[in-house]
Amino acid sequence: MAKDKKLVESITSREVDFAQWYTDVVKKAELTGYTSVKGCMVLKPAGYAIWENIQAELDRRFKETGVQNVYLPLLIPESLLNMEKDHVEGFAPEVAWVTQGGSAPLQEKMCIRPTSETLFCDLYAKDIHSYRDLPRVYNQWCSVLRWEKTTRPFLRSREFLWQEGHTAHATAEEAEERTLMMLNLYADFVEEVLAIPVVRGRKTDKEKFAGAEATYTIEALMHDGQALQSGTSHNFGDGFAKAFGIQYTDKDNTLKYVHQTSWGMTTRMIGAIIMVHGDDDGLVLPPRIAPTQCVVIPIRQNAEGVLDCAAKICDDLKNAGIRVTLDDTDRSPGWKFAEQEMRGFPLRIEIGPKDMESGNCVLVRRDNREKITVPIAEAAKKAEELLETIQHDMYERALEFRNSHICDASDYEEFSKDIEEKPGFVRAYWCGDRACEDKIKEDTRATSRCIPLGKEGEAPEDAVCVCCGRKAKSLVYWGRAY
Amino acid sequence: MAKDKKLVESITSREVDFAQWYTDVVKKAELTGYTSVKGCMVLKPAGYAIWENIQAELDRRFKETGVQNVYLPLLIPESLLNMEKDHVEGFAPEVAWVTQGGSAPLQEKMCIRPTSETLFCDLYAKDIHSYRDLPRVYNQWCSVLRWEKTTRPFLRSREFLWQEGHTAHATAEEAEERTLMMLNLYADFVEEVLAIPVVRGRKTDKEKFAGAEATYTIEALMHDGQALQSGTSHNFGDGFAKAFGIQYTDKDNTLKYVHQTSWGMTTRMIGAIIMVHGDDDGLVLPPRIAPTQCVVIPIRQNAEGVLDCAAKICDDLKNAGIRVTLDDTDRSPGWKFAEQEMRGFPLRIEIGPKDMESGNCVLVRRDNREKITVPIAEAAKKAEELLETIQHDMYERALEFRNSHICDASDYEEFSKDIEEKPGFVRAYWCGDRACEDKIKEDTRATSRCIPLGKEGEAPEDAVCVCCGRKAKSLVYWGRAY
Repeated sequence: MAKDKKLVESITSREVDFAQWYTDVVKKAELTGYTSVKGCMVLKPAGYAIWENIQAELDRRFKETGVQNVYLPLLIPESLLNMEKDHVEGFAPEVAWVTQGGSAPLQEKMCIRPTSETLFCDLYAKDIHSYRDLPRVYNQWCSVLRWEKTTRPFLRSREFLWQEGHTAHATAEEAEERTLMMLNLYADFVEEVLAIPVVRGRKTDKEKFAGAEATYTIEALMHDGQALQSGTSHNFGDGFAKAFGIQYTDKDNTLKYVHQTSWGMTTRMIGAIIMVHGDDDGLVLPPRIAPTQCVVIPIRQNAEGVLDCAAKICDDLKNAGIRVTLDDTDRSPGWKFAEQEMRGFPLRIEIGPKDMESGNCVLVRRDNREKITVPIAEAAKKAEELLETIQHDMYERALEFRNSHICDASDYEEFSKDIEEKPGFVRAYWCGDRACEDKIKEDTRATSRCIPLGKEGEAPEDAVCVCCGRKAKSLVYWGRAY
Repeated sequence: MAKDKKLVESITSREVDFAQWYTDVVKKAELTGYTSVKGCMVLKPAGYAIWENIQAELDRRFKETGVQNVYLPLLIPESLLNMEKDHVEGFAPEVAWVTQGGSAPLQEKMCIRPTSETLFCDLYAKDIHSYRDLPRVYNQWCSVLRWEKTTRPFLRSREFLWQEGHTAHATAEEAEERTLMMLNLYADFVEEVLAIPVVRGRKTDKEKFAGAEATYTIEALMHDGQALQSGTSHNFGDGFAKAFGIQYTDKDNTLKYVHQTSWGMTTRMIGAIIMVHGDDDGLVLPPRIAPTQCVVIPIRQNAEGVLDCAAKICDDLKNAGIRVTLDDTDRSPGWKFAEQEMRGFPLRIEIGPKDMESGNCVLVRRDNREKITVPIAEAAKKAEELLETIQHDMYERALEFRNSHICDASDYEEFSKDIEEKPGFVRAYWCGDRACEDKIKEDTRATSRCIPLGKEGEAPEDAVCVCCGRKAKSLVYWGRAY
């Protein structure tokens, strides 16, 4: 019993020290591990399985929109990285350089890809000749590397896993359409599968991707009130096409530049799941993404018939398509409960001799601790229902939390006070001037997260900039961010 | 029509120049592309989709045996690579070194993983404490990099995709059992899914993996008579465990070293598929691995009802679980036939106005060009049957070819002549001495591929070494290899 407690007690409370709580959860739920490679993470089975589920579901949605997967090299020669000016300025300071191959120094150094725009452009310049070759809608699943100074598991690491989509289109309109299609695909995925509500918006020029004409983003709110950029989709216009000479012969027999997009989502989303849904007992996984959705825990498992009954329940759930495991190890039930909570399995089923006498078993929800007693024969059906309910409730709770952590500020004093005292998003009008954005960041450590899409982002006639008081151009979500 | 022919004619014949034929197929079937990164390949959609199917099927088989997926860092600090003596000697000459991160030189240089034994050992040393922590059966899907001087797509490239399994066990017996389990899993997969027969065997000491106690291999025979090592499984004993200090407390409360294995399969298998099954018209894909199993090609598609009928057939096949596409582009049927053949789709269905009048359509097998006329309503059922038949026939043909390219040599003159004049495997007895292996390689460019498992590998009492004439220890498959 002392050991059972220790497992739980050793986690710092979210309210006491959120950063430490996060580190504790990542470690105790065995999502990541340490190696001797500074700033790089090890994804252990429990962490990698979440990524596999994210991958499978995103990939399915990608392919429905015509995406084809490819794989491009890990290394980028310096001369290739240098071809687009803004892009190289954005990435060169944070790349790792390979200078030696085998025992000989390289004639030209190469960096490990921090992102692969330049490689895709190199390929497209060779492959695209005619309008018949368009559109190209390619994606790759890979790891990238950025030489960060301070790192945190999932949120900021030197190496991380992601997908990067890179497309080429005949027209500007088609490129813009693809950019928004992928933004909405990300938003739907995050809301429907990860149960995390997001704001869909456009980045300001200051915050957009190096080399992009426009960057769209989905922004989520973590439990500590900080924002997390959760997926971005960029419209490059024809900037890269001009730098790399990617031209096609159109139907009218004239040479034209292609219009390009890129879009990505990363293992950072595992950090978002932890920080949106987790609690003081550990991880809480939304059922649709949980590698284990239910664990069956026998009570007094050496008593006659208990293990058989537990195995039967487990089989019933498996047949209903539920990802379920049976924990028949020789540890105590209390230890198993604590582990199920720490690892965030959405549901557990308890079954012991007393339950069996009454023909029932007990289902316990991870998200709200509710206990539901049902006849053993109905366990699978009830579990199916409950997993749907948990998914729904988790999203609703996250949405309520997010909405109750948005406030509107009309002058700079109010704005500064809100940022300091009310963790969350602050909505305020902005003149569109970089100087105001810079001043806000310097004064408050808040950055412009995005200009929300549609009507919400438009400033009415009489709206003024929260910083300088001049006529406003747009509404902006501001916040401190990871 | 001239254009249709050109598509086909531009491939070199297999018999004229096998190497050029291979290069032509890889390029014309659009499996790989070129970038500015020397020695690294681009896997284009048609190539990557084959890898995705290999991955999905292998991963499913792995998980059935209890494998868990993880992800470990891309970079290995020099000191970590240096920890196991044989291993560093084997790999250090062919790694790429990162010496600079951002704008600063690194204090310790790091190599890009050529394989990840050292990283897994580093993790296991930190994670394994008790017999309860064993076994660990981890695998990762990733890319690795080896600084090869001469490269060929799929067969030898600086960067390639693979999976690497790394396990830790309490006993030597358990490690050996896992090593052989994975060897057999690879062999079954390659034979059942890729339709390629393999010899299962053990490598000689000279050919085994750097740091391994024993290396097992599956060896396949390509159409030009050269061997291709197609998957390896290594038993490390406790060598790495001692170098990295991976110990556990056993039930009897004593500290013991773990026993480890590793095993891998790579994108090289795509090269094997090409070289075993391809012909002078291009790629021939086994149905079980083909991303597109059937293409429906309308004849005179502007004639009334043809496209609708083709779409209906396509839907029927899709509903039967067949990976099918409809080619309704404005190119000629001849062009489409040639493309289907070049890309190796196992089956095509032709449907035109004349067929429709008779209520039939025509199925054409890629592997033997056989044409089968069936009622339109039975197309899906027949396609299903034919795909099974093609899979079976392709394996049988490859097996017959392989078996007819094995010969037995009893003295050195015969051996040298066979190696030179009869492309394929030469079976011959060997004394077990490295000197004979070296001499054979120097004289004939043949290497020992493997000592076959079981009775076949044992030398009878009176058998003598084909090279030195002394008493033989084992039977060896010899051959020139990729």
